[in-house]
Amino acid sequence: MKGYAMLGIGKTGWIEKERPACGPLDAIVRPIAISPCTSDVHTVWEGAIGERTDMILGHEAVGEVVEVGALVNDFKVGDRVIVPAITPDWSKVESQAGYSMHSGGMLAGWKFSNFKDGVFGEYFHVNEADGNLALLPDGIDPADAVMLSDMVPTGFHGVELADVQFGDSVVVIGIGPVGLMSVAAAALRGASNLYAVGSRPNCIQIAKEYGATDIINYREGDIVEQIMEKTHGKGVDRVVIAGGDNDTFIQAVQMLKPGGRIGNVNYLGGGDYVRIPRVEWGCGMGHKTVAGGLMPGGRLRMEKLVTLLQTGRLDTGKLLTHKLYGFDKAEEALMLMKDKPKDLIKPVVIL
Amino acid sequence: MKGYAMLGIGKTGWIEKERPACGPLDAIVRPIAISPCTSDVHTVWEGAIGERTDMILGHEAVGEVVEVGALVNDFKVGDRVIVPAITPDWSKVESQAGYSMHSGGMLAGWKFSNFKDGVFGEYFHVNEADGNLALLPDGIDPADAVMLSDMVPTGFHGVELADVQFGDSVVVIGIGPVGLMSVAAAALRGASNLYAVGSRPNCIQIAKEYGATDIINYREGDIVEQIMEKTHGKGVDRVVIAGGDNDTFIQAVQMLKPGGRIGNVNYLGGGDYVRIPRVEWGCGMGHKTVAGGLMPGGRLRMEKLVTLLQTGRLDTGKLLTHKLYGFDKAEEALMLMKDKPKDLIKPVVIL
Amino acid sequence: MKGYAMLGIGKTGWIEKERPACGPLDAIVRPIAISPCTSDVHTVWEGAIGERTDMILGHEAVGEVVEVGALVNDFKVGDRVIVPAITPDWSKVESQAGYSMHSGGMLAGWKFSNFKDGVFGEYFHVNEADGNLALLPDGIDPADAVMLSDMVPTGFHGVELADVQFGDSVVVIGIGPVGLMSVAAAALRGASNLYAVGSRPNCIQIAKEYGATDIINYREGDIVEQIMEKTHGKGVDRVVIAGGDNDTFIQAVQMLKPGGRIGNVNYLGGGDYVRIPRVEWGCGMGHKTVAGGLMPGGRLRMEKLVTLLQTGRLDTGKLLTHKLYGFDKAEEALMLMKDKPKDLIKPVVIL
Amino acid sequence: MKGYAMLGIGKTGWIEKERPACGPLDAIVRPIAISPCTSDVHTVWEGAIGERTDMILGHEAVGEVVEVGALVNDFKVGDRVIVPAITPDWSKVESQAGYSMHSGGMLAGWKFSNFKDGVFGEYFHVNEADGNLALLPDGIDPADAVMLSDMVPTGFHGVELADVQFGDSVVVIGIGPVGLMSVAAAALRGASNLYAVGSRPNCIQIAKEYGATDIINYREGDIVEQIMEKTHGKGVDRVVIAGGDNDTFIQAVQMLKPGGRIGNVNYLGGGDYVRIPRVEWGCGMGHKTVAGGLMPGGRLRMEKLVTLLQTGRLDTGKLLTHKLYGFDKAEEALMLMKDKPKDLIKPVVIL
Repeated sequence: MKGYAMLGIGKTGWIEKERPACGPLDAIVRPIAISPCTSDVHTVWEGAIGERTDMILGHEAVGEVVEVGALVNDFKVGDRVIVPAITPDWSKVESQAGYSMHSGGMLAGWKFSNFKDGVFGEYFHVNEADGNLALLPDGIDPADAVMLSDMVPTGFHGVELADVQFGDSVVVIGIGPVGLMSVAAAALRGASNLYAVGSRPNCIQIAKEYGATDIINYREGDIVEQIMEKTHGKGVDRVVIAGGDNDTFIQAVQMLKPGGRIGNVNYLGGGDYVRIPRVEWGCGMGHKTVAGGLMPGGRLRMEKLVTLLQTGRLDTGKLLTHKLYGFDKAEEALMLMKDKPKDLIKPVVIL
Repeated sequence: MKGYAMLGIGKTGWIEKERPACGPLDAIVRPIAISPCTSDVHTVWEGAIGERTDMILGHEAVGEVVEVGALVNDFKVGDRVIVPAITPDWSKVESQAGYSMHSGGMLAGWKFSNFKDGVFGEYFHVNEADGNLALLPDGIDPADAVMLSDMVPTGFHGVELADVQFGDSVVVIGIGPVGLMSVAAAALRGASNLYAVGSRPNCIQIAKEYGATDIINYREGDIVEQIMEKTHGKGVDRVVIAGGDNDTFIQAVQMLKPGGRIGNVNYLGGGDYVRIPRVEWGCGMGHKTVAGGLMPGGRLRMEKLVTLLQTGRLDTGKLLTHKLYGFDKAEEALMLMKDKPKDLIKPVVIL
Repeated sequence: MKGYAMLGIGKTGWIEKERPACGPLDAIVRPIAISPCTSDVHTVWEGAIGERTDMILGHEAVGEVVEVGALVNDFKVGDRVIVPAITPDWSKVESQAGYSMHSGGMLAGWKFSNFKDGVFGEYFHVNEADGNLALLPDGIDPADAVMLSDMVPTGFHGVELADVQFGDSVVVIGIGPVGLMSVAAAALRGASNLYAVGSRPNCIQIAKEYGATDIINYREGDIVEQIMEKTHGKGVDRVVIAGGDNDTFIQAVQMLKPGGRIGNVNYLGGGDYVRIPRVEWGCGMGHKTVAGGLMPGGRLRMEKLVTLLQTGRLDTGKLLTHKLYGFDKAEEALMLMKDKPKDLIKPVVIL
Repeated sequence: MKGYAMLGIGKTGWIEKERPACGPLDAIVRPIAISPCTSDVHTVWEGAIGERTDMILGHEAVGEVVEVGALVNDFKVGDRVIVPAITPDWSKVESQAGYSMHSGGMLAGWKFSNFKDGVFGEYFHVNEADGNLALLPDGIDPADAVMLSDMVPTGFHGVELADVQFGDSVVVIGIGPVGLMSVAAAALRGASNLYAVGSRPNCIQIAKEYGATDIINYREGDIVEQIMEKTHGKGVDRVVIAGGDNDTFIQAVQMLKPGGRIGNVNYLGGGDYVRIPRVEWGCGMGHKTVAGGLMPGGRLRMEKLVTLLQTGRLDTGKLLTHKLYGFDKAEEALMLMKDKPKDLIKPVVIL
């Protein structure tokens, strides 16, 4: 079968591979809609997860089941399914502890285009199908649904980690597609004043549509100062980090009230340390909790999030600025993510 | 001064009283907008809290500060303020434990028209003003804001007790003004399928506007059966009880999934017991948690909830079907709550 | 193979059965130490779970692995293992939601001597071995460890459900073996005043050794009155229900402070309703949360709890009043549980 | 009146001051037992909180009430009371939000020897007496009880922040008096393997008595390596930081499992940043939560913690290596804390 792959750090291309084998608990899926992720870009061009050779890329997909293992009970050939980026091993002790994304080791629930081939192949393999697939409901556009693989659960998890409550003031730093989902999630969880930090005009427009009450443009001055001015020196209740770099945490702590929480869902690809400013962190005593974590994946997560689309609570379609048609457009889609043209938020490839 | 009072069980009328005295931590407030509550009706005509003589009614108000005690720092004469129905004693151990509504004893944070005169007087007394008043922000209609005294925090607390999460399916039982605020809160906290149980056409209409996806009309059949049919026999993740009677809990347990939660904010005025059905409660083993509690009041709660109005997340104006003008309309407003004409949701009196 | 079985309601006996087959994820285990449970008594003589025919009894065991399925990675023939009473299906959505004991349906994580043969056979079957077995560490007596199957996790779960915090006052109602583990758990989690409700002298003695500060003997007067007297009318912070009957919840609510929690781990075998007293429950507004749930089982739970034995935090040996030797003593052990002689807490059969 | 004071950075001495005035909500207390804290040392000789002139030191005391304000209801002259180091303003919004230690601003619940005179005076002032004093129960030694002012609530809060659960493996870094209380608290909350990091022989001995299962001596090698070896490379569930410096957080993250929590109660007196190692923090995705906070003070906290002494769950007496008699020994006690002789854990002055 054909797949669009990382050939090595800095190099991508189409390759031929054997169709993956289906273990007794697994499924083989043919993609219907796929989307590249900034992580794919980091993986290939920054070597963020180290060297990989001839590894098919991609971890965001909706597809059709073409084969199931003998022990799979809940899915059958022909089912149209949402595939989460994170597909845990559900019986591992980490999953039993509530951290299925770390099943088998830190971050080890992330398998596609990391430990095994991703979804940009004619076929791809899904471990523990009963626990990791969700049926695509009738009436949901596969292109919209592919945002449930990673963008929605990651963006929403930032808000879960920050533990937003009714009437909280919230900053979301970064309004790429994940950050926009954090904006939508914060509004959907009861935030009041919702400050979105970004600068790209199209993203700013969508951030407002998703519920941002204020835009903080870092090109127009220090973001901490802007937030402190808008909050009359009090700071905010919660900060979600969905962009920036390691030093974004310094700003996040500075703009946070005592008793506040930071929820990070930005993958930190380089540098040795995240730094927490001592004084603004209350000399270790300020109850400004710093949390960060990989998105929860698996079946239940997909099943619950898709109901937000079904009930019209969330419209992921706003993210889809570029719709490409045909499997061979996987390459173009990835290059869009790499080159980030001005009008791009997220491309999707419909097969 | 004049006040509209409970004269005794079953009797109300206008009385003359001394203007309340202002202790060193307290404030005296003149009402700007007030609203009667179903609790006032229960108090007078059902004797729900026992006998009371010449007690001024009402616990929902926005007003203007006319006097402050010597130890009050944050409010001054002329301030326009939102007054919560629940005004805790903040230094009590119950408040320190996080249950300020029970400061000094179970439910003892509820003082207006319970342990002391309520807000349907020319003036009323607020204990611990610094901890129990919130400034009415510019641009917020006092009539809308008076819904923050009780309807909003009570309705929202049902959703907090039920601990609604992203994508949860939620039933709200009862769609009077409190239940409607629970519907709004459930939607605002990320519920997907949101089943509102009620029958009055105007409430049904507003429930949909606040985010209900389905209306369950108890006049059209058993509500448990209707919910189970709509959920394909699975039941729901959360149930908020904002109406009904003691036996509503039986239905709530029956329609709830294992691991679910019930959040009750309905004041249960009679009967000896709430009953939990043993088998559907998993023989005591089903992890169907039953929680119920009085709304959290106080300053912070008001300050946070009003930001939901300011940012347009919540429109309490939809509740206000009847706007009356002039203090002397307090009586008419209460009678509306008592008689519940078809088109009534909530009356407000603007002074 | 031979097994000691429920022949039908009210009848037990030794039967011959085929040795269970081992699926690819499963293990077959030979018991080393087993213990009967009060649930076995309810199952047989009260028909608590309905009719069963020729079903081997028992769900508490330590054993030796004699066969593993092809997909089992972490266990091998010859391993000595602790077997939890509750063996979830880990990939089910209920497990993903944190309620693995209800995987596949309410209480459906309980399989032994319920949906399939129990552990009182020469061999027994364990589903999802990698997720449901734990190695018996060197130096831990299998007889002590068999208490980890059910008595410890159930008793401890009562304390988890009640969410005991440092310095809490706690009542544990019922001091059979599960209740004694709740007493130990409450002390181990930081309770101060710890009131154990029971009457049997040997249990009273052990309750004190596990950390009870006061014994409340229901034969000496109403337990609510006794608790209220000892707490100067204030009641307690937490109540764990590990015995009694449906009406025990009435007492639990009565003795609980506002803001308190009830954690139930008593299997309620009969009656239609659990009743919550309206007035003492604060008319639905008292923040007295009622929680109840089946123990969490599985591998991680066993692995963590056994460390409490290894580090000497918990001595389950105190429960083992009757040690019998030889598989054929399974019958005698069960009859001890049924007849409850005065000096019995828990029998164990060592093979 | 006389008081032992910080005269300026680096200088201490006895001074004369006016006896503090008693506001209507306040109390004036005469100390019965006092203890100096390492914070006093930092305050004076490191200038940790900036310049202070003629400020009476000390924030750990048990005393006798000699005057109460007109609005104080629950305490009277002659009452023997435990005084917490942190005395919040209970009606502030931060207290209402559950963070009373930050009432009025980050760390602003800490008033003694910070914003006002401390307890090393013939008399000292307590704000909001009803909310900030607790009766010393009969039978509790004032010297033991003075450890409840700061050592116990701070050490215990580290364990609360780390959220220790039954069977968790826990590291406590630092076994001075606060760290020893964290060790005791971790054991008291159900930790199994409990690794105490320190080197002083007397502290090591007491750490074992409080429940440490292993001592990690940083003089004998890298503590992360030692922990990883003892845990077979897995790391631990929880880390409590009660000593060390800013870089201790690097080690804490390194030794923590994904899904783990760090609870810091060490006051970080210098340096610009706390650093979190990116890779071991899972590139921001490891669910290793970093929490840190000032102890909760106030009346309820004292009342609950003292019950741990009354019921024998906790013996603070082990900390008291040096008992001095007479108010004039305040100076000697402070110098002991400054010079830390080998056999010192904590000195107490009994008046």
